[in-house]
Amino acid sequence: MITHISPLGSMDLLSQLEVDMLKRTASSDLYRLFRNCSLAVLNSGSQTDSSKQLLSRYETFDINVLRRERGVKLELVNPPEDAFVDGRIIRSLQANLFAVLRDILFVHGQLVGAKHFQEDSIHITNLVFSILRNARTLHLDEDPNLVVCWGGHSINENEYLYARKVGSQLGLRELNICTGCGPGAMEAPMKGAAVGHAQQRYRNSRFIGMTEPSIIAAEPPNPLVNELVIMPDIEKRLEAFVRIAHGIIIFPGGVGTAEELLYLLGILMNPENSEQVLPLILTGPKESADYFRVLDEFIMNTLGDEARRHYTIIIDDPAEVARQMKKAMPLVKENRRNSGDAYSFNWSIRIAPDLQLPFEPTHENMANLNLYPNQPAEQLAAALRRAFSGIVAGNVKENGIHAIEQFGPYKLHGDTQMMKQMDSLLQGFVAQHRMKLPGTAYVPCYEIVA
Amino acid sequence: MITHISPLGSMDLLSQLEVDMLKRTASSDLYRLFRNCSLAVLNSGSQTDSSKQLLSRYETFDINVLRRERGVKLELVNPPEDAFVDGRIIRSLQANLFAVLRDILFVHGQLVGAKHFQEDSIHITNLVFSILRNARTLHLDEDPNLVVCWGGHSINENEYLYARKVGSQLGLRELNICTGCGPGAMEAPMKGAAVGHAQQRYRNSRFIGMTEPSIIAAEPPNPLVNELVIMPDIEKRLEAFVRIAHGIIIFPGGVGTAEELLYLLGILMNPENSEQVLPLILTGPKESADYFRVLDEFIMNTLGDEARRHYTIIIDDPAEVARQMKKAMPLVKENRRNSGDAYSFNWSIRIAPDLQLPFEPTHENMANLNLYPNQPAEQLAAALRRAFSGIVAGNVKENGIHAIEQFGPYKLHGDTQMMKQMDSLLQGFVAQHRMKLPGTAYVPCYEIVA
Amino acid sequence: MITHISPLGSMDLLSQLEVDMLKRTASSDLYRLFRNCSLAVLNSGSQTDSSKQLLSRYETFDINVLRRERGVKLELVNPPEDAFVDGRIIRSLQANLFAVLRDILFVHGQLVGAKHFQEDSIHITNLVFSILRNARTLHLDEDPNLVVCWGGHSINENEYLYARKVGSQLGLRELNICTGCGPGAMEAPMKGAAVGHAQQRYRNSRFIGMTEPSIIAAEPPNPLVNELVIMPDIEKRLEAFVRIAHGIIIFPGGVGTAEELLYLLGILMNPENSEQVLPLILTGPKESADYFRVLDEFIMNTLGDEARRHYTIIIDDPAEVARQMKKAMPLVKENRRNSGDAYSFNWSIRIAPDLQLPFEPTHENMANLNLYPNQPAEQLAAALRRAFSGIVAGNVKENGIHAIEQFGPYKLHGDTQMMKQMDSLLQGFVAQHRMKLPGTAYVPCYEIVA
Amino acid sequence: MITHISPLGSMDLLSQLEVDMLKRTASSDLYRLFRNCSLAVLNSGSQTDSSKQLLSRYETFDINVLRRERGVKLELVNPPEDAFVDGRIIRSLQANLFAVLRDILFVHGQLVGAKHFQEDSIHITNLVFSILRNARTLHLDEDPNLVVCWGGHSINENEYLYARKVGSQLGLRELNICTGCGPGAMEAPMKGAAVGHAQQRYRNSRFIGMTEPSIIAAEPPNPLVNELVIMPDIEKRLEAFVRIAHGIIIFPGGVGTAEELLYLLGILMNPENSEQVLPLILTGPKESADYFRVLDEFIMNTLGDEARRHYTIIIDDPAEVARQMKKAMPLVKENRRNSGDAYSFNWSIRIAPDLQLPFEPTHENMANLNLYPNQPAEQLAAALRRAFSGIVAGNVKENGIHAIEQFGPYKLHGDTQMMKQMDSLLQGFVAQHRMKLPGTAYVPCYEIVA
Repeated sequence: MITHISPLGSMDLLSQLEVDMLKRTASSDLYRLFRNCSLAVLNSGSQTDSSKQLLSRYETFDINVLRRERGVKLELVNPPEDAFVDGRIIRSLQANLFAVLRDILFVHGQLVGAKHFQEDSIHITNLVFSILRNARTLHLDEDPNLVVCWGGHSINENEYLYARKVGSQLGLRELNICTGCGPGAMEAPMKGAAVGHAQQRYRNSRFIGMTEPSIIAAEPPNPLVNELVIMPDIEKRLEAFVRIAHGIIIFPGGVGTAEELLYLLGILMNPENSEQVLPLILTGPKESADYFRVLDEFIMNTLGDEARRHYTIIIDDPAEVARQMKKAMPLVKENRRNSGDAYSFNWSIRIAPDLQLPFEPTHENMANLNLYPNQPAEQLAAALRRAFSGIVAGNVKENGIHAIEQFGPYKLHGDTQMMKQMDSLLQGFVAQHRMKLPGTAYVPCYEIVA
Repeated sequence: MITHISPLGSMDLLSQLEVDMLKRTASSDLYRLFRNCSLAVLNSGSQTDSSKQLLSRYETFDINVLRRERGVKLELVNPPEDAFVDGRIIRSLQANLFAVLRDILFVHGQLVGAKHFQEDSIHITNLVFSILRNARTLHLDEDPNLVVCWGGHSINENEYLYARKVGSQLGLRELNICTGCGPGAMEAPMKGAAVGHAQQRYRNSRFIGMTEPSIIAAEPPNPLVNELVIMPDIEKRLEAFVRIAHGIIIFPGGVGTAEELLYLLGILMNPENSEQVLPLILTGPKESADYFRVLDEFIMNTLGDEARRHYTIIIDDPAEVARQMKKAMPLVKENRRNSGDAYSFNWSIRIAPDLQLPFEPTHENMANLNLYPNQPAEQLAAALRRAFSGIVAGNVKENGIHAIEQFGPYKLHGDTQMMKQMDSLLQGFVAQHRMKLPGTAYVPCYEIVA
Repeated sequence: MITHISPLGSMDLLSQLEVDMLKRTASSDLYRLFRNCSLAVLNSGSQTDSSKQLLSRYETFDINVLRRERGVKLELVNPPEDAFVDGRIIRSLQANLFAVLRDILFVHGQLVGAKHFQEDSIHITNLVFSILRNARTLHLDEDPNLVVCWGGHSINENEYLYARKVGSQLGLRELNICTGCGPGAMEAPMKGAAVGHAQQRYRNSRFIGMTEPSIIAAEPPNPLVNELVIMPDIEKRLEAFVRIAHGIIIFPGGVGTAEELLYLLGILMNPENSEQVLPLILTGPKESADYFRVLDEFIMNTLGDEARRHYTIIIDDPAEVARQMKKAMPLVKENRRNSGDAYSFNWSIRIAPDLQLPFEPTHENMANLNLYPNQPAEQLAAALRRAFSGIVAGNVKENGIHAIEQFGPYKLHGDTQMMKQMDSLLQGFVAQHRMKLPGTAYVPCYEIVA
Repeated sequence: MITHISPLGSMDLLSQLEVDMLKRTASSDLYRLFRNCSLAVLNSGSQTDSSKQLLSRYETFDINVLRRERGVKLELVNPPEDAFVDGRIIRSLQANLFAVLRDILFVHGQLVGAKHFQEDSIHITNLVFSILRNARTLHLDEDPNLVVCWGGHSINENEYLYARKVGSQLGLRELNICTGCGPGAMEAPMKGAAVGHAQQRYRNSRFIGMTEPSIIAAEPPNPLVNELVIMPDIEKRLEAFVRIAHGIIIFPGGVGTAEELLYLLGILMNPENSEQVLPLILTGPKESADYFRVLDEFIMNTLGDEARRHYTIIIDDPAEVARQMKKAMPLVKENRRNSGDAYSFNWSIRIAPDLQLPFEPTHENMANLNLYPNQPAEQLAAALRRAFSGIVAGNVKENGIHAIEQFGPYKLHGDTQMMKQMDSLLQGFVAQHRMKLPGTAYVPCYEIVA
């Protein structure tokens, strides 16, 4: 089956050079990236969370850029059927397809075109800004109103309904939503906010989905995302979240969610950020109270009571969550004005290089982590986040599992007490079915070397 | 508590004469009507279905029209709290309040102002048209796309979810929804369509709620209604539904729903309407198949097989319902064009006076009904609808119950077989918990006089 | 030649009753009114100023209302060719045609439909308001910004260019324009303001033309009018000007212009209007300084120095005119807010019945005018305006000329001095070629009876 | 005087790197370019045509980019007073200021940022496209409707009024205008079209001004330009005109205008462009008939009768000019569709390198020109254009005059007959006062070497 798709929303005009760039033959890598992200978008709303499964199911899928009188068209060969209603593509998917095209070409132009991209802090932040500006994600005329929602993509029904209620209350207060753009806790608040916005006749409804190539296939954009942005990698995506957020809500999730909280604390506890205003709320239904209690204790025990100053835990009260967020918005605005910073992009928040640069969990890198309390809390937070990230990789990511098979468990040098707490945190997640593990029994992929 | 509400959407400018008209002192009737409809609107989304309960709960509620520099404002005294979020009125309610003001003043101007309103067919239809035009409900530039959804306001969870799925499929096909504007089957398809529209980035989302003063309090507009119209009485409301519909879906409901079907058949079986194209689908989930089977049999047995030509029953297939509706739209368009009729208002469909004029279920009127098969089917349908309407009144409406208490059961002169079928139909509804009856055992309020 | 015109802007949907009303056969009067006003609109921009000439040139012109799927269409038979560009009607004329339809039907519905229209002050003002509201001329969300421009329709090139410069300066200050909608001083400020608005990227450009059936043919709407309103008669048109104006500019004109100034002074000098803020500027190029000097002296001599407090004369300084108008707008706004009056319609300005009701210049009425200084100035202003109006009629209007031929000159009872001044004012106009008189020598149509 | 200007229309968000780039200290060249173009924009509508004069009059003018909460602001130090009305900047100038910022940063990013810009045909065209796309000049959803108007910036009153009438007729046909953005023939058609558009209620009014840094100061954008684009140099500007035009009108002008016609003929006579559809009309009032007659004869005599197939001369008939343009639009559309080319950018028209690359009129380059008829006509046209360009430079441009002073007249090797015709053409221009020459008598700056 072959269909031609007209542009919607962005990237409607390409030069001949750009069209050539995306040809299957020309630059295989760029084409693969473009094809796979497009396929993921077309799979929006599907329930799989395995990239491999998705990609293998549509092996004959192909995509070509055609130039026409009214700009480009996309030719889709054997696309997923569910992307269409009575033979016509769903318009949100149509728009998202062109968002993929836009971001891939733009990042390519910035990185490859320039050939001299500097991986320093200033240029990384500048690239994050440029991608968001090019995607028209940064709106000048809006007061602070963007709530970033994090949480698992495979939460239970109960947590899903709760996140939807929170979304509805946020929507009634005319707040917009930005998430990682997949299903679960990334979809529920958008669904709720859509109804809240409708009740308020709020036309400026923004549901920003921010993803990156390595996860888009596993967590395809949910159908409510009306602004899709594809960042080049996981660290720039995290930075983008932090710089466009006016407030952050964390719903229950798996280990990834815990890792994200550590990332945030690594930023917020940095003394250079002491003047920042960024409301952070952890929330879930009654039944998820345990998840947050365990997390909260772990943080208190490792990073100290001081760390808890940076977040609030609210259990089972969607209206209160939304009310607190709404109340904080004028404070965020005032803070930006006082510091002369943009409302739409937080230039001044400091993200240290150890959070900004990717961490590769080799045995050597893991062994070199400093997991002792003899350091500033924000550095410990960053180190813990890396340990965490490595352990997750050792448990579930292909390269991590492979490394463990080859070299045995990671050797961590850390404070005994702290390591114990990490262990019990992870076991708690296992007990709560928040970890997808290959076998049934949890076999730790690390050991403590005192 | 006193709040001032600015205009939204309509009726933002009033003359001094109009403001005076709505003063509590000036014209008590008009003021009461205005106050009570406004209160109902402010109660949107509440779960009660008793007008009395609603009105008595907010006895201190008061509403005043104030003139200000930028048009009128409404002063609300002691309004229901749920109409507000953090002290600010929900904007859909704000808009609906001004829709109430608009329609009440307009109808008053047409009826009382003119002082010579003729209750003939031409003038009734003309009034229905004028009210809809004044409310800007009739859009010239739209192709046929309006699906009227009927069904009970207190359906079960299962039926609610089904109606929402149908709505979602209608929304994905960019169809708009018009309902009686209350909860249940009047809310579910709108909720579904809102998500479908969002997926299609469909901006022209119309959720028309059509109500009238005697039921607005019992079935307050659900929060998704974005165009509220208040017709002056139940018959003009029914006529409005039929004339603006491009298709009609009937979900499971109580006796009222069955009565509405008879009303429709009374119109569609009229030979003068033989050229009309008005798709009519009866649909529900698997579990509701019985409801439609019983109804279908009753119709076949009383009005004959011919009657069944006018509707399709689809069980448990939301996509198919939407697909058939969508497919019918070009036929509706062609039919209107061929007959030179407007897309937005079906002038040419014939509604006979016995359907257009109100029926008062006195004992005499009930006794005079011709319930024998010796007449054209459409007249029998109209007569059955009246009998039905009377029986419902005798069971549940205040004036009906009172009349039964005073004069005993209605005496119906009808075909024995037919009466038996009506009886069994009603008993089926009782068994399915679709009737709100005062006691537990069903005591018929009528008897057959051969 | 027959053309069908689709609706633009307003009145796109008519009921069957309304269509019938406008049929040539049904109600000859209403049809004639509709036909002649439509013809005048189609003649927009033509240079004739004679109704008779216009109407006789297009005797075969006919117009019919047709009902179609997407609302009504107008069928034009033998319309003026200049209304079309390459066979397509100019869209501003298309919109104006439907404005005619809208206002004629509305006024007819209000006056004839009601059958009990009361010609008292409250109901007249209410009708003026209702017509403007129905035409959507009253914008709630706008701050005071509407400048009414008066002046002759046959001014000289020099005055035309000056009025255009004033318009350009008004446009640069984002002020909107309302005029009597014909050529000359009614067109020039709009033309200037259009360029000023374009320079300011001002999208909300309003060029309101307010006319009435007896003059629309002689002064057809100029091509820039983008909101046409047809008031039912000359007095209601004057009232509409005054109530929607936030400021008034008077350019040089003929006797009509002088009469309008007297009308305004009759209002502004009324003690009940002492709190009103309504900036009034008389302006023209250097060469027209005389016109205003003569007028100014006449007013000072008859109504006293006090009268001059109500206007400012600015000669040859377009920017200063616009600057003063712009500066006055916040004062107008504040004044309305203080008095609780609407920004878009001045309810509170008092227009005495002797200004609000039509004056018929019979010999008896003229003889009864009190033209002595022994009365409040505003009453004298009103009486002078009537004398003036009668003299104009006696000079140029058909019925006036006829009456003079039959009964001889009007006998005016007035103060000798005052009569002399009136005489010299009129002779000045003759000298300046501002009067269209049948012969060359000016023969007064009145005589003074001491 | 210091003023802060908010963004309007474009380039509202800058990164820190971009702001730094435009600092006076950082990169002096880029800053000078930015400052001088901004000053020219602020001088819009001024009557000077000397860059030097303009720049020297505002030596204390300075401009700084500031970052604020809602994006950047521009700080203007001692800007020209006429850019302001009552202390507020005129919004079209405000928008144009930000267009300058946008284009200067973009071109800088493309050229300097990339550091490997290839000056070949493909990359030049690609850059032209990218600049226009970045400026949002290329509209996908529009059918061909853009008329490029060329002509002198200092035409006489008569020609100005004629060009305005042509503009009015183009506007009535809903055609948009693109010019070189200065006064004279670049302003008049826009002024006319603005009124024509207003009459048609045409909202999508586009008045594109395309300029480049070396002439913007001498021909500052007229006040009607609502889309300003700054191309990097004169050749790319000419290419941009040709690629976005759907039709071209040439009004009377000076030598520059004749040179532009030769440029066009060099393109249109290229056999590779034989399938192109690009209507080209030369037009002027009666009084300018001579100008075109002389030009026409020169072309016939040098390039042959074949050349005249590519243009039409229409004298004194504005409606006919517009009618022919309008009629050609569907042909342009069809031609683009047949060749698969974009409506908004003519990729397929061939511009040979001798037209695409700049020509420097050194004595050597001039001597090497092949001005003999022994070559394809399009190459002769290109050579003539270069000779022409050199002669103009020798007469009026600083570097040309200087070279003549130093090395004596250019030696041209050309066909005697042809050289004579060129000579008489130029003398004709002198006679018609179309050349600004330093002295009174025309002293040729070249001589023919047989």
